[in-house]
Amino acid sequence: MLRIGIDLGGTNIVASVVNDEYKILGTGKTPTNVPRSPEEIFDDIAAVCREAMEKAGVSIAEIASVGMGTPGTVNSDGVIEFANNLGFNNLPAKDMLKERLGNIPVFIDNDANCAALGEAYAGCGNGAKNFVAVTLGTGVGSGIIVDGKIVSGVNNAGGECGHMVIMTDGEPCTCGRRGCWEAYASATALIRQTKAAMAEYPDSIMHEIAKEEGKVSGRTSFDAMRKGDIAAIKVVNNYIKYVACGLINLVNALQPEIICVGGGICNEGETLLKPLRRYVQAERYSIHSKIQTKIMKAELGNDAGVIGAALLGSVKQR
Amino acid sequence: MLRIGIDLGGTNIVASVVNDEYKILGTGKTPTNVPRSPEEIFDDIAAVCREAMEKAGVSIAEIASVGMGTPGTVNSDGVIEFANNLGFNNLPAKDMLKERLGNIPVFIDNDANCAALGEAYAGCGNGAKNFVAVTLGTGVGSGIIVDGKIVSGVNNAGGECGHMVIMTDGEPCTCGRRGCWEAYASATALIRQTKAAMAEYPDSIMHEIAKEEGKVSGRTSFDAMRKGDIAAIKVVNNYIKYVACGLINLVNALQPEIICVGGGICNEGETLLKPLRRYVQAERYSIHSKIQTKIMKAELGNDAGVIGAALLGSVKQR
Repeated sequence: MLRIGIDLGGTNIVASVVNDEYKILGTGKTPTNVPRSPEEIFDDIAAVCREAMEKAGVSIAEIASVGMGTPGTVNSDGVIEFANNLGFNNLPAKDMLKERLGNIPVFIDNDANCAALGEAYAGCGNGAKNFVAVTLGTGVGSGIIVDGKIVSGVNNAGGECGHMVIMTDGEPCTCGRRGCWEAYASATALIRQTKAAMAEYPDSIMHEIAKEEGKVSGRTSFDAMRKGDIAAIKVVNNYIKYVACGLINLVNALQPEIICVGGGICNEGETLLKPLRRYVQAERYSIHSKIQTKIMKAELGNDAGVIGAALLGSVKQR
Repeated sequence: MLRIGIDLGGTNIVASVVNDEYKILGTGKTPTNVPRSPEEIFDDIAAVCREAMEKAGVSIAEIASVGMGTPGTVNSDGVIEFANNLGFNNLPAKDMLKERLGNIPVFIDNDANCAALGEAYAGCGNGAKNFVAVTLGTGVGSGIIVDGKIVSGVNNAGGECGHMVIMTDGEPCTCGRRGCWEAYASATALIRQTKAAMAEYPDSIMHEIAKEEGKVSGRTSFDAMRKGDIAAIKVVNNYIKYVACGLINLVNALQPEIICVGGGICNEGETLLKPLRRYVQAERYSIHSKIQTKIMKAELGNDAGVIGAALLGSVKQR
């Protein structure tokens, strides 16, 4: 059975035809070019779906369902209630997709939830029924899978674990709270922490690396650490402690089979994951349990979103 | 259909016969008297079950299942892997109950999970399928219900939301972490916060109240606040902020229909709940959602545990 998954992002619109083995058979892609009217954006969404079908060599009659992951909150009627970076406000997204693609079953959910579903079924989760995906990017995105289904809550706004406070009265977060995990564990936060350390340590190798790169990035402190820079070691250790703090919170609350960590910072691989696992092992509440949550690296990269979106039609959601 | 629910606590063993409408038909009770051998404790558990049946006027043949809530972690074989305050270590609790009660279906889960199940089905949840129960007691206990079932995770140790860090590097917690919600929002934490304020403000009315009561309790600061004491107002406001912080974390992660707040501190009623709701309303991530999580007071008190334990046999668990 073939399905279309759409990943509607602030930068790109991507659609893929996905088969029952979670393989991508064809993909269409175009820039989102915001700000634009929702009608123009949805015309392009339909166009990339057709491009994906063409590349896969299939017709719409062969497609069992269309799923879309979008930023923001989607209600059970397929209305995007609010998506700040796309300028959507109570947009009847499901109806707009059906208008353009014909009367085919359409499912829409939050993009982080779709990515979590993709990784749980087709990525590092390998079918895990209880699974949390965390993405360390501009923010900290997350999606929770319990019993094989997305935990979307009473209003489809669930899974925002980046906005759990880990430091009461701490750093301001874009959400309005102070001390959110996102404000400490996102790539944005790491860059802020790196810049603060650079200001404190004018002799740090981080200055040279940033000069070569033309900017301070999420890699600056990790690269300087590998060169033995003391200030950078401090930055990385602190950052990993913050990431671990949120992961342990999730372990204690949900004890999923797997927590999958993705996003750009994960390119550091075991440099990040090994100390994360050590922190989790030392601090989790379940010290006496024989079975423990595994901390794994995301496998699907950007494909998690389209594969998870395609899965919306096959995994009966709550 | 009749079921027996057992609440095995560090202080008392309680068992009740519960009917399909979640009504308690008869209850038996005895002190736990720890430390004692597991065999003696389980003999008493069987005795209170018989007492409950006698008071309900029913025989074991009419009982469809027995459920028990226990402190600690219970694995899927009904073995209590570890329960510190009872001195249990890999105790085959399910088999020990069957030996004493005959070959009747037996289900065992963590006590906080059972209490959550009870409140979700028979208490303030009124059948809510997505529900979190939080108990502000000696510690902060909690249980998570998703899709009508307890989220017990890969190792049956799930639902320990009291051990989510809300203050990185903060107050030490009994679990070994620093800054857990429990270390700020439990009755124990409130008493610590009250004592600290009393030391800082020798003229506070809290001193008089504590002297009259013979001790500093979870009520001291609330009572002094009602008399207009400035230091007490500060203590209560801070405490409520900490409680709210964890609640908002749970709202953002899970967006349950209802979060139920129980435990001794909840006797303060709306004095506690009104400001909690205001904090949640102001800080939740889902500001644009039409439907929002309700914050409610637990209704069943100590009965939540036995009713939830009885429900273990009727609610198909994961």
